[in-house]
Amino acid sequence: MPRGYYCPPCYEGWWPCNESDERYFLPAQQRLTFVLVHGSWADAHFWDGVAAVLRSRGHAVYTPEYAGHGKDPNKNVTHAMITKSVVDFITKLNLRNFVLVGHSFGGTVIQKVAEQVPDRIKRLVFWDAFVLKDGESVVDEFPAQMRQSFEQLRASSMDDTIMLPFPLFRDFFVNTATLDEAKQMYLSVTPEPAKPLFEKLDLKAFYALSMPKSYLYFYQDNALPQGEGFGWHPHMSIRLGQSRLIVGDGDHFTDSRTRPVMLAQKIYEAGRD
Amino acid sequence: MPRGYYCPPCYEGWWPCNESDERYFLPAQQRLTFVLVHGSWADAHFWDGVAAVLRSRGHAVYTPEYAGHGKDPNKNVTHAMITKSVVDFITKLNLRNFVLVGHSFGGTVIQKVAEQVPDRIKRLVFWDAFVLKDGESVVDEFPAQMRQSFEQLRASSMDDTIMLPFPLFRDFFVNTATLDEAKQMYLSVTPEPAKPLFEKLDLKAFYALSMPKSYLYFYQDNALPQGEGFGWHPHMSIRLGQSRLIVGDGDHFTDSRTRPVMLAQKIYEAGRD
Amino acid sequence: MPRGYYCPPCYEGWWPCNESDERYFLPAQQRLTFVLVHGSWADAHFWDGVAAVLRSRGHAVYTPEYAGHGKDPNKNVTHAMITKSVVDFITKLNLRNFVLVGHSFGGTVIQKVAEQVPDRIKRLVFWDAFVLKDGESVVDEFPAQMRQSFEQLRASSMDDTIMLPFPLFRDFFVNTATLDEAKQMYLSVTPEPAKPLFEKLDLKAFYALSMPKSYLYFYQDNALPQGEGFGWHPHMSIRLGQSRLIVGDGDHFTDSRTRPVMLAQKIYEAGRD
Repeated sequence: MPRGYYCPPCYEGWWPCNESDERYFLPAQQRLTFVLVHGSWADAHFWDGVAAVLRSRGHAVYTPEYAGHGKDPNKNVTHAMITKSVVDFITKLNLRNFVLVGHSFGGTVIQKVAEQVPDRIKRLVFWDAFVLKDGESVVDEFPAQMRQSFEQLRASSMDDTIMLPFPLFRDFFVNTATLDEAKQMYLSVTPEPAKPLFEKLDLKAFYALSMPKSYLYFYQDNALPQGEGFGWHPHMSIRLGQSRLIVGDGDHFTDSRTRPVMLAQKIYEAGRD
Repeated sequence: MPRGYYCPPCYEGWWPCNESDERYFLPAQQRLTFVLVHGSWADAHFWDGVAAVLRSRGHAVYTPEYAGHGKDPNKNVTHAMITKSVVDFITKLNLRNFVLVGHSFGGTVIQKVAEQVPDRIKRLVFWDAFVLKDGESVVDEFPAQMRQSFEQLRASSMDDTIMLPFPLFRDFFVNTATLDEAKQMYLSVTPEPAKPLFEKLDLKAFYALSMPKSYLYFYQDNALPQGEGFGWHPHMSIRLGQSRLIVGDGDHFTDSRTRPVMLAQKIYEAGRD
Repeated sequence: MPRGYYCPPCYEGWWPCNESDERYFLPAQQRLTFVLVHGSWADAHFWDGVAAVLRSRGHAVYTPEYAGHGKDPNKNVTHAMITKSVVDFITKLNLRNFVLVGHSFGGTVIQKVAEQVPDRIKRLVFWDAFVLKDGESVVDEFPAQMRQSFEQLRASSMDDTIMLPFPLFRDFFVNTATLDEAKQMYLSVTPEPAKPLFEKLDLKAFYALSMPKSYLYFYQDNALPQGEGFGWHPHMSIRLGQSRLIVGDGDHFTDSRTRPVMLAQKIYEAGRD
């Protein structure tokens, strides 16, 4: 028996392993179309790194920016307006047969988008995203203390937005980042329209849909407590019923900047047939 | 302080690290005897890759195939017949002092086998396997929707078997595989005798046994929902009482084909003294 | 598109990747002061490997040994005496602005130390550590069977200590170790004063503190069952309220000996600003 290292990429050989061995090469990827829907305190640039990686592998990638976010000066938006932004983006470009990915709050957006253009969608992918029950709001899924913090932040706003203070952003969104990375990412955080986070959504139509679904969970993501009645997985993923689970190492925001290849690979694994 | 890469195999040095440093070599393995018990929708060939790796490292490996599976044309079997297959295999070969590994449904089999030949067994290893409570059946551990699906599949069968439709196999058993790998693995899936999945098992004797036990959990395994009152770990692992936990990256079936070295290493870590 | 290996350290390039590419170098670390508080069945030497790594990276590291442990011949100690050991260590050396890390039982110690010297502490880090509720004892967090075992071990002692039998140490503290590593580590296990594990602690002052906090969780740690109402994360981590989560691969004790670089890196990630 040979002794030595495991070959880390696949753990299927000794290290340094035989680079010419075909087993160790990444398989060619199925060519897909991705529509990536960002979450709160983010805009379409959230996906810049991931989109570049996915495109380099032959996929088509679209990153709609929705009402109240990015270049939109109007912060007085509803969840329906946000959904309409994405639906309009899809129908104007006549996109079909795409993988619709929602991150965080974006999960609630793709739930509602899926109700409106179900036949255009190949698969839904929720990445550490809300899967709301019929009649729920996003803040209904927060622990009491977090909900109170958000209500106070909302009440202190002049324009019904919530600005995420840096300490909350640091702990809940970029916990694995260096402080410099955290500060850099915080530069793109702007006040979030509050109303859509508190709106209770009618999701009866969503729960009647039968399209393929995946849940991508990163186990260092602490944006919500993970367990004890809260969290992404399995608390929300279980609501999808039959679905594909993919798990990775990462947190809520950091890897979109620091490990776009890893994140793109996981999104691909969640999205492929 | 030097700057550079971590050396991935152990994270204990800079990369490229000094290959001659003995710390980085895999330790020699204790020589063990393994009896590997497959689960539903599988036969003894499920273990081909893992068994080859374990044998290459000096272990003795046995992979009994049980009633209603593999080459057995009779699908009208009971849980007791399945248990008898494994017990007879063990006693005919007069196997002793072995690590008895059960995967998935195979967990229920090693629970019953352990009741009958406890003195021959060195350790029980449950790999993403059912650990049923006294008086439970396998389907008692399914969420309501999954149980209904299985009851319908059973009702639609002519010979009281359940054939796993490809979409269910894809989502629940091989979620991390490529589509090609999933299709390849599906070729060996045949209709599963339904009755043993619905039989309530008397496990009072099992819970009086005191032999060493381990639970091996793969965190991408989604064959059952993981949490909210369901799942492999900790929902079933906790029933073992004092036991050894080993956790790895993998799903329910895929790694047996694509990463047999990783899987064999984890089974060894669960099985060694 | 190039084909090949992922570069394992960061997954952001093909392997072998360009070593001169600055992205792949570890970022320089913020210089911190760490005070590391060990748990039960351990003494200050528990931290030897980790402390050496942290010092090599420019951090100041202190590892106070507390009453009833290490060189202290008196095993008849209270939780208050243990806390006083650490507080006295800190005040005698006039340590300020440090990251206070507690492992396992050490979590209860840093809870009480934080109450007494809050202004000296920069951040609290709980690594697979108890975060007790006000009025709780450590054994209140044990499953019934484990609590009974500990009560019996205590009752059988002449000097109100609990010696951890090797099989329990093997399964609960060093489950991922080889048997040789487990035996080697067991050489430093000595009888643990029982009283502090059964004392109910007044923690009202702790829960009024607002300093930064982190929880470091290793997902192979099975010292407590992880879920079903027990465990480190999220069962105890959630009690910290807003805090930073860091997750790693490891168990309760082994990595302090076998992977001090990995463990030191995770402690740094939990402790930095």
